[in-house]
Amino acid sequence: MKVRITSDFWKRYQDIVRENMLPYQWDVLNDRADIRIEGERRNDDSIPTGKSHAFENFRIAAGKKEGRFYGMVFQDSDAYKWLEAAAYSLRNHPDKELQAKADALVDLIGDAQEADGYLDTYFTIEAPEHKYKRLMESHELYCGGHFLEAAVAYYEATGHEKVLSIARKLADQICLKFGPEPGKIHGYDGHEEIEIGLLRLYHLTGDASYLEMARYFLLERGKNPDFFKKQLKEDDLPAIFPDMGKLPDSYFQNDMPFLEADQARGHAVRMLYQCTAMADLALISGNEEVKKACERIWDNITEKQMYISGGTGQTAIGESFTGDYDLPTDSMYCETCAAVGMITFARQMLCLTGQAKYADIMERVLYNGLISGMDLEGKHFFYVNPLEVHPKTDPLDPGKNHVKAVRPSWLGCACCPPNLARLLASLEQYIYLKRDGNFLINLFISSEWTGSDFHIVQKSDYPWDGSVSILVENRGEAFSLGVRIPSWCDHWKLSGKFEVRDGYAWVLCPSGETKIDFTMDMQAVRVYANDKVSACAGKAAVMRGPLVYCMEGVDNGREISNLVLPVKAEFTENYRPDLLNGILTLHADGIRETSETKELYSHRKKQKTPASLTFIPYYAWANRGENEMQVWIREEN
Amino acid sequence: MKVRITSDFWKRYQDIVRENMLPYQWDVLNDRADIRIEGERRNDDSIPTGKSHAFENFRIAAGKKEGRFYGMVFQDSDAYKWLEAAAYSLRNHPDKELQAKADALVDLIGDAQEADGYLDTYFTIEAPEHKYKRLMESHELYCGGHFLEAAVAYYEATGHEKVLSIARKLADQICLKFGPEPGKIHGYDGHEEIEIGLLRLYHLTGDASYLEMARYFLLERGKNPDFFKKQLKEDDLPAIFPDMGKLPDSYFQNDMPFLEADQARGHAVRMLYQCTAMADLALISGNEEVKKACERIWDNITEKQMYISGGTGQTAIGESFTGDYDLPTDSMYCETCAAVGMITFARQMLCLTGQAKYADIMERVLYNGLISGMDLEGKHFFYVNPLEVHPKTDPLDPGKNHVKAVRPSWLGCACCPPNLARLLASLEQYIYLKRDGNFLINLFISSEWTGSDFHIVQKSDYPWDGSVSILVENRGEAFSLGVRIPSWCDHWKLSGKFEVRDGYAWVLCPSGETKIDFTMDMQAVRVYANDKVSACAGKAAVMRGPLVYCMEGVDNGREISNLVLPVKAEFTENYRPDLLNGILTLHADGIRETSETKELYSHRKKQKTPASLTFIPYYAWANRGENEMQVWIREEN
Repeated sequence: MKVRITSDFWKRYQDIVRENMLPYQWDVLNDRADIRIEGERRNDDSIPTGKSHAFENFRIAAGKKEGRFYGMVFQDSDAYKWLEAAAYSLRNHPDKELQAKADALVDLIGDAQEADGYLDTYFTIEAPEHKYKRLMESHELYCGGHFLEAAVAYYEATGHEKVLSIARKLADQICLKFGPEPGKIHGYDGHEEIEIGLLRLYHLTGDASYLEMARYFLLERGKNPDFFKKQLKEDDLPAIFPDMGKLPDSYFQNDMPFLEADQARGHAVRMLYQCTAMADLALISGNEEVKKACERIWDNITEKQMYISGGTGQTAIGESFTGDYDLPTDSMYCETCAAVGMITFARQMLCLTGQAKYADIMERVLYNGLISGMDLEGKHFFYVNPLEVHPKTDPLDPGKNHVKAVRPSWLGCACCPPNLARLLASLEQYIYLKRDGNFLINLFISSEWTGSDFHIVQKSDYPWDGSVSILVENRGEAFSLGVRIPSWCDHWKLSGKFEVRDGYAWVLCPSGETKIDFTMDMQAVRVYANDKVSACAGKAAVMRGPLVYCMEGVDNGREISNLVLPVKAEFTENYRPDLLNGILTLHADGIRETSETKELYSHRKKQKTPASLTFIPYYAWANRGENEMQVWIREEN
Repeated sequence: MKVRITSDFWKRYQDIVRENMLPYQWDVLNDRADIRIEGERRNDDSIPTGKSHAFENFRIAAGKKEGRFYGMVFQDSDAYKWLEAAAYSLRNHPDKELQAKADALVDLIGDAQEADGYLDTYFTIEAPEHKYKRLMESHELYCGGHFLEAAVAYYEATGHEKVLSIARKLADQICLKFGPEPGKIHGYDGHEEIEIGLLRLYHLTGDASYLEMARYFLLERGKNPDFFKKQLKEDDLPAIFPDMGKLPDSYFQNDMPFLEADQARGHAVRMLYQCTAMADLALISGNEEVKKACERIWDNITEKQMYISGGTGQTAIGESFTGDYDLPTDSMYCETCAAVGMITFARQMLCLTGQAKYADIMERVLYNGLISGMDLEGKHFFYVNPLEVHPKTDPLDPGKNHVKAVRPSWLGCACCPPNLARLLASLEQYIYLKRDGNFLINLFISSEWTGSDFHIVQKSDYPWDGSVSILVENRGEAFSLGVRIPSWCDHWKLSGKFEVRDGYAWVLCPSGETKIDFTMDMQAVRVYANDKVSACAGKAAVMRGPLVYCMEGVDNGREISNLVLPVKAEFTENYRPDLLNGILTLHADGIRETSETKELYSHRKKQKTPASLTFIPYYAWANRGENEMQVWIREEN
């Protein structure tokens, strides 16, 4: 089965990946880009920002260069994510030059791999005696997992045997070193990811040892919370991350087994990568207990710990989940990588359950908290995706030193940019799903889905317009096509006969052609947060279709927290092809409340003056210089 | 001149100091109280919370006991602040038992003092080779300053010669060790306080060397920002506060000389202690440049960086000022000690300038952000004084791990409780001021002020009632009496003839009796924050007279952020002698906005239902168990 995206909106993003992000990131990883690298927090000089050095580390590990390792201990993963993104791009767009670069990188990785299969340039170069001895902080298996993902993707795209053989050699070495048997390491990595990689390698090869290894890592985690600390104590290398030992066990999801957890907790990206693999394991194994645990965590996140943008991680301290209904909008984290993790978790849950609610969240994250992580050209990136910024006061507060109003060119901890690239380049995998003989349309992205005996074409101007035309050519037996009814949509119409189940409108597609017109009412609506979310009390967010909107200072003047959206104000729409690569702006007659006094505290009532309010899609913010932004706006009678 | 407080409100506080706080704190400092000591932040096990050990450290330093130092490096200052509070209490209320305790403590301090005058139990016990070699973190002169303050107070209260001789011996040793001369240390303490102590000793003794020493410390600071780091590098003791070296120079007000600064910055208590001494220096020296610098910093704080409670320090990170108009109400610090520092700074500015605006702030802090630091019995204390608390979500967020909803019995870093005690016990010093032959009434605290040729009696039910009767008996020549017109007061009346100048209503008091009736309109009013304070946009605070009011969950139900104060709602008042030691509560017909849906984000409009709103004085919050609290409430048409 093959999917080809034709959507103007998303084709642009995929073109950006191909034309900008892959060449740009190749240069950055090769230390050839003339850019300024920033720490993801202001005033944090513990992050190496001199250069990337990612490819150079491989050259040194391979013995082709002299030198020392430079960068984060997990710098290798930047290269692997680039390779994975290149793989997806090559599958859609064969490109000899890109493939030559990727082949060269694969050769380099192969050269850096040790004879026994071990692969991690930091430990090969700097600490060969300490391999797998400091798993809390080493990220060795985290990097390994990213390589396995990249290798599978690159093999699937190009049939490149060597990359698969490097991957199997690495995976085999891991299977040899880890597991419940005596003499093996009874533990796991401080950062989940290897589990995803092993399961992908299992799906490709069918080799059950990879499945078993992943199952061990997933189900063993949290059974022995002292594992990390004990390992560190027994090893004599100085701490790589001196503060990491102070973090609670929950940071690593190491406080309890997944099957016992009710809440998402700890580092958001770690948590979501664990969930992604766990949901895949539930599907592969049919284990109901694992499935139920995945559903519990999913419900906890989406019903109690998720921002309206689909962002997760409420605190910068540990880049972590905090707890139910704690959703501050000015100090949140919402890391771009967590958005990636949320999308992959959603996709696995969708495969596992066939419920549209998972696709709803997948879409929410995709159109909002994911692509807010990059500028419109794919050359500047956010690590943190705030719901409001105050460029005048945020930089003063060390508790907000992670909140930036402008995207940096590159980040000292560069996990996010190539993660965005690989997700956008593989977007084809998220639109449709064939499950139990049924066909599901999960995302309304204009595209063609082709199988041996079917061809489905969907066309729309989504996300700007809610009319979707679907043409099904069925050359085989009748099947049911489920068209997702988005949860954001209060009114919709579907031509012809259908029945609603699991959040989909099901249409029977007999052999031959079936035409479906699906229309979603896409007027702007206000969204309110749960009564328990104190940060959003008295405020509304504005959404239109899947898009969360926001206000920026450049459109709305200074001190936008003084703007008010009257309860009865109606929205007008304006499609602006010239603005921010073409967006639909929303407008309402609002109020500005000011006292214009210089006093800090005053008895003087605030004066209300009319103010024209302009909203733009959240993903497009911070593309017009530094200015204020807010998603939640005060609402009044 | 002598002042005797008769105010029911404040006499109660002074009784609490005498009857509860001094005996209780004596027991705590002697490790005899059966209490739980808490770190000032949750999950911070770097704070020693096993016991106080403050007096025991002196016994060990004096060679009367074997053992190690225990507690914060500045634990000595807890004992000194207790002694200072005892001194003020003894001046008003002679008490043989208390004096015996204090005398014994003075003897112990004398025994712990080294032959050359050096006094600091940490270094005497643990690091005698490192005296004055790690001033950034050592707090030696900080502790010394607190001892000088205590000694002056105790000498003034009791005429105790020995305490003065210990103090002079210490001050002389400091003068010998520090200063611009070759061979002396060209530096100053990491935490300002010695400057206040030296100036008090100068005021008492007239010895100009103490003035010169204070002047040197004050004006030298910030001229050589590398001083601290250089000293630490040259000394080989492991860091006492390992993270302190990461703090910026501004934390210590070491980034620039005071005379060049435009903004309050760094650790709030440090900043305010510096200002207190600096304003005293301006008065003593008549130096206009120093005076102007004090006014600049004062204006910056009160016009741009102060909470409505008079609290200061917007961030827990470094317990610091952040910058103009950054005034988050949920993550602020507002340390109780900073309230003390703000009051002493205000008093010095008042002495320096005779402007009522300084007394306005003194009163604001006193009635709100200061006494909120203790419970109504004086046995539980806040380090941090929040403007809103959410007991369900605050504890989840590590960025708010300093925000507590209930006052602990004692704090591992116990600077605040004895600081409260000494300020409350010395409240007499803040009510009146004789300046340039004029008499000022700054606080409306029922009391008698007696001099050799005058007797002034003021009576009121302040802060509950705004009628103040003042009786002046003048047995000398005519003088002018200035009655402060509070800035919170929009309408007032004063009997007889007067003229208004510098924020005071001036009444000529000829020889003989003068009766003055001063009436301030005390109805509840709404206060609005400056347009630039985003945290307070759309919200009002409620004040009545000098008191800031707040809402607590116990009176207003759950999720109080959903409550709204209609613009037109009027307040009713209810004096409740039974409640919280007698308070006047405010009530208004408000609105509760809820959707009652379990969804995290919903299209469902919030329903408005009537809600009776109850406000209590902010200082009295958190005396009825754990519940929500907010000072700022949403306002709507």
